[in-house]
Amino acid sequence: MTKKNKKKSTTKKSVKAVAPKKVRIGVVDTMFARYDMGQAARDELATCPGYGSRFKVIARTVPGFKDLAVAALNMIREDGCDIVVALGMPGSAPIDKQCAHEAAQGIMQAQLLTATPILEVFVHEDEASDPKVLASVFENRSRKHARNAYWMLFEPEQLSRRAGQGIRQGFDDAGPLQLK
Amino acid sequence: MTKKNKKKSTTKKSVKAVAPKKVRIGVVDTMFARYDMGQAARDELATCPGYGSRFKVIARTVPGFKDLAVAALNMIREDGCDIVVALGMPGSAPIDKQCAHEAAQGIMQAQLLTATPILEVFVHEDEASDPKVLASVFENRSRKHARNAYWMLFEPEQLSRRAGQGIRQGFDDAGPLQLK
Amino acid sequence: MTKKNKKKSTTKKSVKAVAPKKVRIGVVDTMFARYDMGQAARDELATCPGYGSRFKVIARTVPGFKDLAVAALNMIREDGCDIVVALGMPGSAPIDKQCAHEAAQGIMQAQLLTATPILEVFVHEDEASDPKVLASVFENRSRKHARNAYWMLFEPEQLSRRAGQGIRQGFDDAGPLQLK
Amino acid sequence: MTKKNKKKSTTKKSVKAVAPKKVRIGVVDTMFARYDMGQAARDELATCPGYGSRFKVIARTVPGFKDLAVAALNMIREDGCDIVVALGMPGSAPIDKQCAHEAAQGIMQAQLLTATPILEVFVHEDEASDPKVLASVFENRSRKHARNAYWMLFEPEQLSRRAGQGIRQGFDDAGPLQLK
Amino acid sequence: MTKKNKKKSTTKKSVKAVAPKKVRIGVVDTMFARYDMGQAARDELATCPGYGSRFKVIARTVPGFKDLAVAALNMIREDGCDIVVALGMPGSAPIDKQCAHEAAQGIMQAQLLTATPILEVFVHEDEASDPKVLASVFENRSRKHARNAYWMLFEPEQLSRRAGQGIRQGFDDAGPLQLK
Repeated sequence: MTKKNKKKSTTKKSVKAVAPKKVRIGVVDTMFARYDMGQAARDELATCPGYGSRFKVIARTVPGFKDLAVAALNMIREDGCDIVVALGMPGSAPIDKQCAHEAAQGIMQAQLLTATPILEVFVHEDEASDPKVLASVFENRSRKHARNAYWMLFEPEQLSRRAGQGIRQGFDDAGPLQLK
Repeated sequence: MTKKNKKKSTTKKSVKAVAPKKVRIGVVDTMFARYDMGQAARDELATCPGYGSRFKVIARTVPGFKDLAVAALNMIREDGCDIVVALGMPGSAPIDKQCAHEAAQGIMQAQLLTATPILEVFVHEDEASDPKVLASVFENRSRKHARNAYWMLFEPEQLSRRAGQGIRQGFDDAGPLQLK
Repeated sequence: MTKKNKKKSTTKKSVKAVAPKKVRIGVVDTMFARYDMGQAARDELATCPGYGSRFKVIARTVPGFKDLAVAALNMIREDGCDIVVALGMPGSAPIDKQCAHEAAQGIMQAQLLTATPILEVFVHEDEASDPKVLASVFENRSRKHARNAYWMLFEPEQLSRRAGQGIRQGFDDAGPLQLK
Repeated sequence: MTKKNKKKSTTKKSVKAVAPKKVRIGVVDTMFARYDMGQAARDELATCPGYGSRFKVIARTVPGFKDLAVAALNMIREDGCDIVVALGMPGSAPIDKQCAHEAAQGIMQAQLLTATPILEVFVHEDEASDPKVLASVFENRSRKHARNAYWMLFEPEQLSRRAGQGIRQGFDDAGPLQLK
Repeated sequence: MTKKNKKKSTTKKSVKAVAPKKVRIGVVDTMFARYDMGQAARDELATCPGYGSRFKVIARTVPGFKDLAVAALNMIREDGCDIVVALGMPGSAPIDKQCAHEAAQGIMQAQLLTATPILEVFVHEDEASDPKVLASVFENRSRKHARNAYWMLFEPEQLSRRAGQGIRQGFDDAGPLQLK
């Protein structure tokens, strides 16, 4: 059950006249990335149960990944998003790694300031040298994290069932280790 | 004595009719880790005095270690946890170290924003090359930190008695140095 | 539509007597940089539709890039800026990279504390060895980000249309990757 | 004069009936460190003028150095400490340096959130290879910083008199440079 | 015009009876530094127009550079400083660089929490190998930043006039680049 619904059930028990506010999943991406990560995330969400009825998707595009944090914060505070998927692509130069670090720290702080999850979905330009492989990492990771966002709001048991299983987004799962 | 009980005794002295709120220990883990760290922590807590009576355990699973901080914050603010054990496994690539840094910074900030301890329990995938040894580090460290959480709430003298003794979680204790 | 206008339309619907407050774009630069980045940004904004009528530009100069964050924060809080373009030049020594990191973290935090975008426009002194090339990076990047600021306030569809297209500021666009 | 006393004199001038609240110096250390740093700090404070009369010492032990920040914050907010000495020992592996960084950032933030000084006293395990030398660094640095805490509250002129003198804790003083 | 004066003119227009509060410039330095940076800063401020009449200087010394941030914050909040010059000397070992980073992050956060500029004036012990040269860097940089503080409060046009001119503190100016 989502935070929004939970709150409602606590504070306004059995006030049936008010229609439940539709849950909102935010998707924010960048012009800088070399793949339309936002489209992949939105495509995945469109296949989730309740799309358009139980939840709707709010989309936004910013210039680069350093602009994701405040955009996600405003999508939560002003647009009422219950969770946000923030997608970006750090480049391969050392300075890009540093910028990715700053962008990730911002996304972390935005989560804590809003008490709301923002799933950081970064694909580093140097994760694969083959452009086709890299493109598939973009598509796969963006979709998997969009699905995670849906699970976090509506099916948290999907997550607890997979605890410690070495689950990956973008590449194959690593699998669990055995104690003996 | 826990914070919750202490507060109660200060503000509502001798109002006997209200049953004391059970202390809550949160355990949050990830799908990404290759070992069921949350299970190990919960197993340890189940052996602590007062389990189920003086305190209960709240459990949650998130996708990866960067999602631990806001989850722990919400377990404190919304679920009323008095302490949280946050368990995750950073991978071995350089970018994983950077991500672990961001995750750890988030956990630190969540503690300061809630004025509540969150024990960060990270096992780095490259701490041991032998999968069996690594699995035992996962099991041991998760359990030891769960025990620490219990001590912090109920038996702080266990901690002060061990001050400066080179205590370790996951490997053998390092022991104290001597001045002369 | 800008935040300021949006708020007004929500809270004071159809109160026609009050003239709409002009949108403000802040431009803050440094004495330290070796190019007049603020001038380039202001020149670009002067070519945007509505310059002087729909929006006006507030300018400020600080000593170095570490002074940008609090200056931008005050331009938002005290001068009423709706967005700020913060321009600086990190030097090429390792310590300069560390300082750039601190400056960038400050700009990130200032955004989250004000819930307002601050576009960080940094040109690293070692991005090009030829002074003429470097000067053109300064001019181009400052202008492109000033244009981005304008788009974010008045034409967000310009951004969403370019999502995932590998857009760059300062150098040629990298372009998008193809999945197949 | 301490903050606490100063405030009192401002807001409750000449209300003689209330005994002045005793100043509190917090000392928080870890089980992880290989030397009883807290004991050294407390021993030094016990030799300071006014020990037990003008000020008293509050002590606490946490598992590791990452747990110092929130503990110090709570010692200030809940136990009324006017300053805290936070003592820990980062290990020598690269990951330990990263963890020390996170712990130090937390202590920094705890200071800013409480507007109260927390003296970070870290002895890195690799500062000396000889265990006896290392032990003496532990003892000396812990004592010197405990003395600094006392000076900050009661004798700030001891600090200003030593401005720019290359004062060290744990090793010999470096001394001042001369302009000519 | 300073923030303090600006506020007064806005909220208490033409209430002539109240004498204007003197502007306060804070100077905080350390025992750790090997040069009396605070003295150099205070000497420079003593040569600025209005010293002692329009503005006065508040001075403080702390143990090391990690103690600067909370000291500056309290000089703003409790002593009413309108700007603070924070002076310190990071050592040359790798761990010193990390500590300098933490100290600088703290100063950055203190600025954002108080919405007040704190000029970070760090001279790294390894900026020059010749002690005489290093001493001159200390003297020069401390003075130049003290002057910057004065300009920011009383003559901001001095800063905007030098925008993008490659101005340096401690060494010779780098000068501007030309586009063509």
